[in-house]
Amino acid sequence: MQKSADMSVCVIGLGSMGFGMAASLLRAGFSVTGYDLNADAMARLVALGGKAGQNPAEAASGANVVLCVVVNATQTESALFGPDGAASAMAQGGVILSCATMPPDAARDFAARAEKAGQDYLDAPISGGAVRAAAGELTIMASGKAAVFTRVRPVLDCIATKVYELGEEAGVGAAFKIVNQLLAGVHIAAACEAITFAKAMDLDIAKVYEVITASAGNSWMFENRVPHILEGDYSPRSAVDIFTKDLGIISDMGRGMKFPTPIASMALQMFVMTAAAGMGRDDDASVARMIAGLAGLDLPGLER
Amino acid sequence: MQKSADMSVCVIGLGSMGFGMAASLLRAGFSVTGYDLNADAMARLVALGGKAGQNPAEAASGANVVLCVVVNATQTESALFGPDGAASAMAQGGVILSCATMPPDAARDFAARAEKAGQDYLDAPISGGAVRAAAGELTIMASGKAAVFTRVRPVLDCIATKVYELGEEAGVGAAFKIVNQLLAGVHIAAACEAITFAKAMDLDIAKVYEVITASAGNSWMFENRVPHILEGDYSPRSAVDIFTKDLGIISDMGRGMKFPTPIASMALQMFVMTAAAGMGRDDDASVARMIAGLAGLDLPGLER
Repeated sequence: MQKSADMSVCVIGLGSMGFGMAASLLRAGFSVTGYDLNADAMARLVALGGKAGQNPAEAASGANVVLCVVVNATQTESALFGPDGAASAMAQGGVILSCATMPPDAARDFAARAEKAGQDYLDAPISGGAVRAAAGELTIMASGKAAVFTRVRPVLDCIATKVYELGEEAGVGAAFKIVNQLLAGVHIAAACEAITFAKAMDLDIAKVYEVITASAGNSWMFENRVPHILEGDYSPRSAVDIFTKDLGIISDMGRGMKFPTPIASMALQMFVMTAAAGMGRDDDASVARMIAGLAGLDLPGLER
Repeated sequence: MQKSADMSVCVIGLGSMGFGMAASLLRAGFSVTGYDLNADAMARLVALGGKAGQNPAEAASGANVVLCVVVNATQTESALFGPDGAASAMAQGGVILSCATMPPDAARDFAARAEKAGQDYLDAPISGGAVRAAAGELTIMASGKAAVFTRVRPVLDCIATKVYELGEEAGVGAAFKIVNQLLAGVHIAAACEAITFAKAMDLDIAKVYEVITASAGNSWMFENRVPHILEGDYSPRSAVDIFTKDLGIISDMGRGMKFPTPIASMALQMFVMTAAAGMGRDDDASVARMIAGLAGLDLPGLER
């Protein structure tokens, strides 16, 4: 296995997830370059000891590993295979880890194009949020060749505490992540519907939180997001627009596959309503604010 | 506090929940009578050392405590206040614990009518399922006067490990239970949608279960119900019809309150579809069978 100092890693997309991963890699002694549209994010990377490039190709020049941590399939395609894309600029025989949530078909397409460019590809969606990204404690739901996992093991161990190896074929990692996002999105919408319904019945919603988290109605998302509502704090830990995107992928896939997704599609509409009301960039628990606005409820922080 | 031997308890409704509670009380030395439409259930109670009555009034004659463990508000009204109802037959100054899931308005109405009949009332919905009922390990989400809780403490301690005292007024316990059922019902429908969607993408659904239960997409219901699907075992631990009923209450309440419940209403329709396909009395994870039937998926036990 290679030592950290022998591996040069490029991180494309320095949002809260990508930046946290880059910082973890720098702490562990990797040589790290990065690119983001946001110059401030690149300046922060340089301040930590990394290097910035003017475009994905420049940032990835000579890198052994590229972590592509952008928002969706379109951005991934541009970052890897666009005119200034990373795939042909990195060292030959390198490894691309693609982390954005995307349809499995897109992951399969990108894996084939990476191979044509002489690179290996891991379909490697991530989960865990900004705090765990900064701590190097992500979960990775990945598929790809076993030998490729072995080659990038030092990088994986640095950014994640849990790495699922889900199969040899690209697309499997993407599909697992999509299933997780279906449930996560529905559970957030349900948590917001339930807690506002409780408020409409004049219940003590802090007590509702206590009882439900100890009962069969609990979910990981209910437990994690309802405190934002109780505190009236809608600063974005994860934004509404993430779920208009991810549940949108599921809705599109369902239509394409002729597979019904009524619950996910209804949850999608709740996020779209929340975005329509101007809260797309706010915390995804804002679905509760949207409902409270419609129904005239005095949630914490929203008292009229 | 009274000793068990001094308290006579009547259990009306000897389904899996009521029977488990009656058995727990008998084990603890209470004098227990019971009534159910099903003669077999009454015979089993007698076999354990209880007594049966020919109707609620006869079973409750002279009892200090009545546990009403029937299915809904209509049955509760009949059992307590009908022509052969328990409320006027039990000992004066007794306590009625009403355990069915019902709208808060119904609980308030029954509490007022119990008071007119000279009895105290706890609005005491239960949660936990048949196995925990049999073990005396239920959760009770209850409201009523603190002094009344104290009087029936020996009974509560015998049937439940967790008793939430949620307020002095009837209706609060019912409302908490309704919030729990909203979430539970949505989470079951979402679990069934997600696991069948995973199957439609050709994923290894046992692996999906392993990954999701360790991820942010998890819920108590996903963790509890998906094993039924993986094993192809739809014998009813809790039936589809429970959720057509409970989500139906929420849908009715929402319309009455002018409060939107889009996610719960969509989940309700999934249970109605499953009941329409003839699976109303089967396990509530049968929503996955309904979807698999539509989409031609080979779930375990359903291979064609």
